[in-house]
Amino acid sequence: MSSDEVHVGVDVGGSKILAVALRPSGGNAGTAVTDREPEVVATATRPMPGREAPTGELEAAILVAVAEARGETALGGVGLSVAGLVDAAGEHLRFAAHLPWRAAPLRRRFEELLATPVRLANDANCAAYAEIVAGAARGISSGLLVTVGTGIGGAVMMGGQVVRGAHGGAGEFGHMQVVPDGLACECGLRGCWEQYCSGRALERVVRVAVGTHLDGPEVAALARAGDTVAREAIASIGTWLGVGTAGLVSAFDPEVVVIGGGVSAVGDLLLEPARRALADSLQGTDYREVPALVPARFGPEAGAIGAALYSLDGIG
Amino acid sequence: MSSDEVHVGVDVGGSKILAVALRPSGGNAGTAVTDREPEVVATATRPMPGREAPTGELEAAILVAVAEARGETALGGVGLSVAGLVDAAGEHLRFAAHLPWRAAPLRRRFEELLATPVRLANDANCAAYAEIVAGAARGISSGLLVTVGTGIGGAVMMGGQVVRGAHGGAGEFGHMQVVPDGLACECGLRGCWEQYCSGRALERVVRVAVGTHLDGPEVAALARAGDTVAREAIASIGTWLGVGTAGLVSAFDPEVVVIGGGVSAVGDLLLEPARRALADSLQGTDYREVPALVPARFGPEAGAIGAALYSLDGIG
Repeated sequence: MSSDEVHVGVDVGGSKILAVALRPSGGNAGTAVTDREPEVVATATRPMPGREAPTGELEAAILVAVAEARGETALGGVGLSVAGLVDAAGEHLRFAAHLPWRAAPLRRRFEELLATPVRLANDANCAAYAEIVAGAARGISSGLLVTVGTGIGGAVMMGGQVVRGAHGGAGEFGHMQVVPDGLACECGLRGCWEQYCSGRALERVVRVAVGTHLDGPEVAALARAGDTVAREAIASIGTWLGVGTAGLVSAFDPEVVVIGGGVSAVGDLLLEPARRALADSLQGTDYREVPALVPARFGPEAGAIGAALYSLDGIG
Repeated sequence: MSSDEVHVGVDVGGSKILAVALRPSGGNAGTAVTDREPEVVATATRPMPGREAPTGELEAAILVAVAEARGETALGGVGLSVAGLVDAAGEHLRFAAHLPWRAAPLRRRFEELLATPVRLANDANCAAYAEIVAGAARGISSGLLVTVGTGIGGAVMMGGQVVRGAHGGAGEFGHMQVVPDGLACECGLRGCWEQYCSGRALERVVRVAVGTHLDGPEVAALARAGDTVAREAIASIGTWLGVGTAGLVSAFDPEVVVIGGGVSAVGDLLLEPARRALADSLQGTDYREVPALVPARFGPEAGAIGAALYSLDGIG
């Protein structure tokens, strides 16, 4: 791309639309997969239209966010990051719990609306691509991303790419069963990992312990201030993070496990219990390596940055 | 390779050494990854030396098996399939519960002993490669092999290759935790999948139900004859097969799941309960595909055939 172009990544999340305009530096697109430092030159946010609003309103909000982020600069392309199941071809959004689209040909639709090449990918896959290109998964042969937010998301990384799976569904770690006949999950199953390891799980653990509702950032603030109950609640989430990750490590043998998502902002209060549980839950650690469990580089903007990188690299 | 050469695959198992001499047909090595029909032209078996025997005896038994399998034909190369952890480079056997080697540079050692190119790989990975080239995973983009034998083994298949993982340990499904604080496993952990889904688990379920020890083939014969207890015991193993597979499917989204290993010889008595449990344990099956769960093509000779194919293709 010419240096006076930007690629815009748009993360269409549950509560807002975040657009970032990206200009790469530290390398050339198409010449090196990783080790490029993306330069965010502008960001724009728009509120999500209400759940009952027609999809046209959501489309319009996305177009406005893209226009605001690009400003006067030429647009090289757009990447869309969506919290839902995207097909393996990157053409359709098949399903998203918090978005109005069902089996929607979003890539093509936004190419028509924006008159520019559009790439479409799942938000955790976008976040993983950002970590591969410029974050905690730079230069690794294989890795996993586990995002601990409201629920659990994730991605499988291999050979500098995000693995999509046969139907676009690889990395859906949140609904792996970790407790037979365990806690009921919104998905209709029981004992799903995200019932034990997520922001919602953290709130539940605190509520059970002290009888009061505190949200995740409140628990995090208390834990940082040394509150024992808050620390133990986060440690419980971290232990389940390690236990579940151990199963994935047995299956994939990744070089590194990257932990992202809102809950991971508490850092080692979460990661240290997770590291202990991971090591304790792996078979044969006398003769096999325990992969490093590291924090993601990118925070809430990971999906948008990854989507912009997908657009820049013509992937997705 | 010239048509008057064979490649010999040797499976070094817990109880015997099996060597097969392979001549490919239906395609040319190096030109098509899959869709070649391997032709087994000779087999040879040798008993395993006792556990306390020096490794020299085991080496000698392997050399004799190779010599017997190749007969008078020129030897193009040898593949070694071992029931243990092989490093990612295919050079060392790091650990094997039932073999005397530890951190042993087996590939090089046998190249010296045999004066021919040698490839070394884990037995489940060899079996998966046989399924990729000429079996149930032919032509697929991604898949999983789960072998239900004495324990559980497995492999991850992607793009016509077996995924080794960062340290050679990908596909070690047997010790994924499926029950927190569950049954104690020989590996030192609790609740490992193979405690609920394996030949040993089948024997335990029957022993608990009827108070008698029956081995796997006896249970299988009773089940085929319509015995209710035997059928329910196999169904219990099959249900756990489906539950554990569901977690792997959420993580990988494979096109197909291939079930091999000795217990899988009972066929649909195992696979039908597994298919039901798989479908029941996956989130969002209204909008995502449940992968086919299919029997492996190759039985007890899978490891040896896959090792010969690795040698033929220069992989491993």
